[in-house]
Amino acid sequence: PILINKIIFFTPPTKNGEDPFRTDDLPENLGYHLKMKDGIVYVYPNEAAASKDEPKPLPYLNLDTFLDDMNFLLALIAQGPVKTYTHRRLKFLSSKFQVHQMLNEMDELKELKNNPHRDFYNCRKVDTHIHAAACMNHTKEKNLTLKELFAKLKMHPYDLTVDSLDVHAGRQTFQRFDKFNDKYNPVGASELRDLYLKTDNYIDGEYFATIIKEVGADLLEAKYQHAEPRLSIYGRSPDEWDKLSTWFVRNRIYCHNMTWMIQVPRIYDVFRSKNFLPHFGKMLENVFMPVFEATINPQAHPNLSVFLKHITGFDSVDDESKHSGHMFSSKSPKPQEWTMVKNPSYTYYAYYMYANIVVLNSLRKERGMNTFLFRPHCGEAGAITHLMTAFMTADNISHGLNLKKSPVLQYLFFLAQIPIAMSPLSNNSLFLEYAKNPFLDFLQKGLMISLSTDDPMQFHFTKEPLMEEYAIAAQVFKLSTCDMCEVARNSVLQCGISHEEKVKFLGDNYLEEGPMGNDIRKTNVAQIRMAYRYETWCYELNLIAEGLKSGE
Amino acid sequence: PILINKIIFFTPPTKNGEDPFRTDDLPENLGYHLKMKDGIVYVYPNEAAASKDEPKPLPYLNLDTFLDDMNFLLALIAQGPVKTYTHRRLKFLSSKFQVHQMLNEMDELKELKNNPHRDFYNCRKVDTHIHAAACMNHTKEKNLTLKELFAKLKMHPYDLTVDSLDVHAGRQTFQRFDKFNDKYNPVGASELRDLYLKTDNYIDGEYFATIIKEVGADLLEAKYQHAEPRLSIYGRSPDEWDKLSTWFVRNRIYCHNMTWMIQVPRIYDVFRSKNFLPHFGKMLENVFMPVFEATINPQAHPNLSVFLKHITGFDSVDDESKHSGHMFSSKSPKPQEWTMVKNPSYTYYAYYMYANIVVLNSLRKERGMNTFLFRPHCGEAGAITHLMTAFMTADNISHGLNLKKSPVLQYLFFLAQIPIAMSPLSNNSLFLEYAKNPFLDFLQKGLMISLSTDDPMQFHFTKEPLMEEYAIAAQVFKLSTCDMCEVARNSVLQCGISHEEKVKFLGDNYLEEGPMGNDIRKTNVAQIRMAYRYETWCYELNLIAEGLKSGE
Repeated sequence: PILINKIIFFTPPTKNGEDPFRTDDLPENLGYHLKMKDGIVYVYPNEAAASKDEPKPLPYLNLDTFLDDMNFLLALIAQGPVKTYTHRRLKFLSSKFQVHQMLNEMDELKELKNNPHRDFYNCRKVDTHIHAAACMNHTKEKNLTLKELFAKLKMHPYDLTVDSLDVHAGRQTFQRFDKFNDKYNPVGASELRDLYLKTDNYIDGEYFATIIKEVGADLLEAKYQHAEPRLSIYGRSPDEWDKLSTWFVRNRIYCHNMTWMIQVPRIYDVFRSKNFLPHFGKMLENVFMPVFEATINPQAHPNLSVFLKHITGFDSVDDESKHSGHMFSSKSPKPQEWTMVKNPSYTYYAYYMYANIVVLNSLRKERGMNTFLFRPHCGEAGAITHLMTAFMTADNISHGLNLKKSPVLQYLFFLAQIPIAMSPLSNNSLFLEYAKNPFLDFLQKGLMISLSTDDPMQFHFTKEPLMEEYAIAAQVFKLSTCDMCEVARNSVLQCGISHEEKVKFLGDNYLEEGPMGNDIRKTNVAQIRMAYRYETWCYELNLIAEGLKSGE
Repeated sequence: PILINKIIFFTPPTKNGEDPFRTDDLPENLGYHLKMKDGIVYVYPNEAAASKDEPKPLPYLNLDTFLDDMNFLLALIAQGPVKTYTHRRLKFLSSKFQVHQMLNEMDELKELKNNPHRDFYNCRKVDTHIHAAACMNHTKEKNLTLKELFAKLKMHPYDLTVDSLDVHAGRQTFQRFDKFNDKYNPVGASELRDLYLKTDNYIDGEYFATIIKEVGADLLEAKYQHAEPRLSIYGRSPDEWDKLSTWFVRNRIYCHNMTWMIQVPRIYDVFRSKNFLPHFGKMLENVFMPVFEATINPQAHPNLSVFLKHITGFDSVDDESKHSGHMFSSKSPKPQEWTMVKNPSYTYYAYYMYANIVVLNSLRKERGMNTFLFRPHCGEAGAITHLMTAFMTADNISHGLNLKKSPVLQYLFFLAQIPIAMSPLSNNSLFLEYAKNPFLDFLQKGLMISLSTDDPMQFHFTKEPLMEEYAIAAQVFKLSTCDMCEVARNSVLQCGISHEEKVKFLGDNYLEEGPMGNDIRKTNVAQIRMAYRYETWCYELNLIAEGLKSGE
């Protein structure tokens, strides 16, 4: 059941100039009933069906199949001959690209020179991985002051500096994700974090909304840049969605160049140790049940229903280098039985998020509502099993650094063209020196990568963080214009903006593979490059197909 | 006569809110006479003195002394024991800094955190090396169109792209300065270069002026950033100064965050081969005589006199990797005897520029006029003799990469604290990969370096090229805030802005050495760092002094 089906990209319905916050068109109540069983939400057409436990058939990859697939993959990635084979194929892909480059670089350049109007600057590029709480640049941080709070901190707004804010990642954060997380507290004061970077405080997250809107205004001014900021749902209590969506709607957070995502931190252990949650199942319930409820009866949850229209996907976040010590198997406790303080493994988290998102998407599709992508952080650090899990469950991932360490998974990500939002500047501060980043290697081999900033507040210096990210990659890796435009095109393909907008930015046929799907007038990617990519990809897929034939 | 006298920085008179183009206060005619002899301008108090060849005593380092010093230095840099000694001292300086860093990094950071208001963002930073013809960013390039010219080029302004402009340095320019120079021709069309990037065309350089003013407006908006753009005087004809200064004054080119420099390309061979010049002496005459004339009789040259008030120094530019094949000695032809097409050596050019600038400065000082620094490009490529020459003649240099290759010169540059404006992004496109740039090594050892952009049009991507330069250095070399602020402070120290402004940006005592000269509230450089630098520098100077004592 491991299928290469990640290539068609999700597109939510477009808003054709309509009020993004309108509530008068919310669909009616279906009167469905909901129940979470073994960590997964089941939908019942009515009370009778619920009492007889006869749910609507909304299929998802059930646990046994998932675990079978997982065990198959676990064996595969450890198998000697498979490792050798994939290693050799990847090496071949790398050398082949270098030959392509030497032979065709000037022709690609010529194609781009003859392409009127379009260049890298007016190509659309999407910041595919950015956290809302760190999406602002230093100039902004300092602009917002609040008298009383500063008095409490015994500081004068004039005194506030980027040094004293101390949010910029320094040499001290390398290999220390824990220290990095502390950087989210300006001046080391959690009060400032609560004030500026949270949506749920005594002024209803007004400052955070203001900052977000300023960043949005910058994006609109830059015109060709989009971002996909993440907002947090923690699963600590069931009213989080209501609070967040009320903040969103009340502050009318909307920017045409932003699409929104929800990130769920994997910090069940923290909540459990403070007795905020009885078991892991409750966390899943808090994360998913409100969304199901709003999907079934939108009019009863107008703010959340509107908010969900703006949400394009779910992210799963935390320090991957923390080892959970848990190995997911058929003997693992069910979510409602997971009462211990220990955190479940990455795979356990991912499976339950994925399964619920699949059920949710089926339900929403039935209702003609937008659906959600699963785009977890994955492979920034930690075990390579994270990447295996993502291969099975994710629409695309953030980071993917550790694909370096597994030729089998790297090759699979290539074959499936699973998109990867890479953030080399973030890695440079946290896990891997810039020059050692596999970005260039992955790009050359033809993996489906984009560039993203992760946390401009912590990592970037200029007022255009995404351009800074591209600029540094261009300089360090000596990228050609065609390389840069290819990465920009990838970023649009893999992001959560609507089909209509993708058509606008990439051309009518963007869903087609290869040069047929490329409109150079919009993307500024040479057809020579597209043809090379497509040929190369088909060749590798064909090798597998032939191998399967001869093997049977 | 080799003296360590480079430490006091030049400062031109300030303009206290007065009209920068006023001509009503120009000093009167002194009635002096001028004559160039053996490539150097001599000043005579009157006609009688001129006919008797009794010039005013305006001392400069005469040729014999210069050649003696040069030969002494040539021997010194090749001497085994001196190489070993300086190599060991430099290694020591490097290790010592690393120890300093490990011990004091957190304390430096603490000092900066406790420093109110000031941080890296509001520290003054000067772009100490930038060419006016390449000072704009891509956004600007595209904004300016001209119908007729585009018609001639068979292009529509809408079609114009950064790709077709083709001014960005690519992989093709590495180790190819010749190709890089061609990049100054947008769309490969010298018409566009003439139109946009020259001051002397049929619309009187109006477009170039507009671009410059836009860049100036960006600097004013950024507030804490200054630039020192270079304008060209070629020495091909004597009317160049008049044309350039008329352009400057007519277009009222003035920006508070810009100071101006004159660059003289070393392309005598090109002019001679086309018979534009009879000999090298004529080129020197064309470069210097008009400036002397305007200094003696300002009212007869109002535009040039005003223009000169804005000029802070001379640069000498060209591809240093071209070997001239000439070795400067007492047997070399005098400038007026240099009639061959072959180009003189770097040293020959530098000596005659330096000597004339020294004489000119004495004359201008007598008149209370601003004087000029000699700040040649040096050590970007080519023979290390270039750096030896600069050590003897230059106030500061641009690039200095090749100090990597000579421990003796590197140590001398350290001892004399000769400022070096480094441009690692430019080097990355032309001569040396970013990661191999000696920037970090020089900074750690305590050489007096700043960061500069060289040619934003060719190398940079964002609208803040100088910040981009700092950002990339910070990321690749993992600079601390203290490191970055130290470099910014260096840039203000070594630039051509006025004494009054330096006081404003660096503090009242900035001319003093060591921590006494540092005002952390203005520079955000930790006193711990300043003390370390001063102690280290004094220790090395003292070693030499002790060595001299015991040697005699």
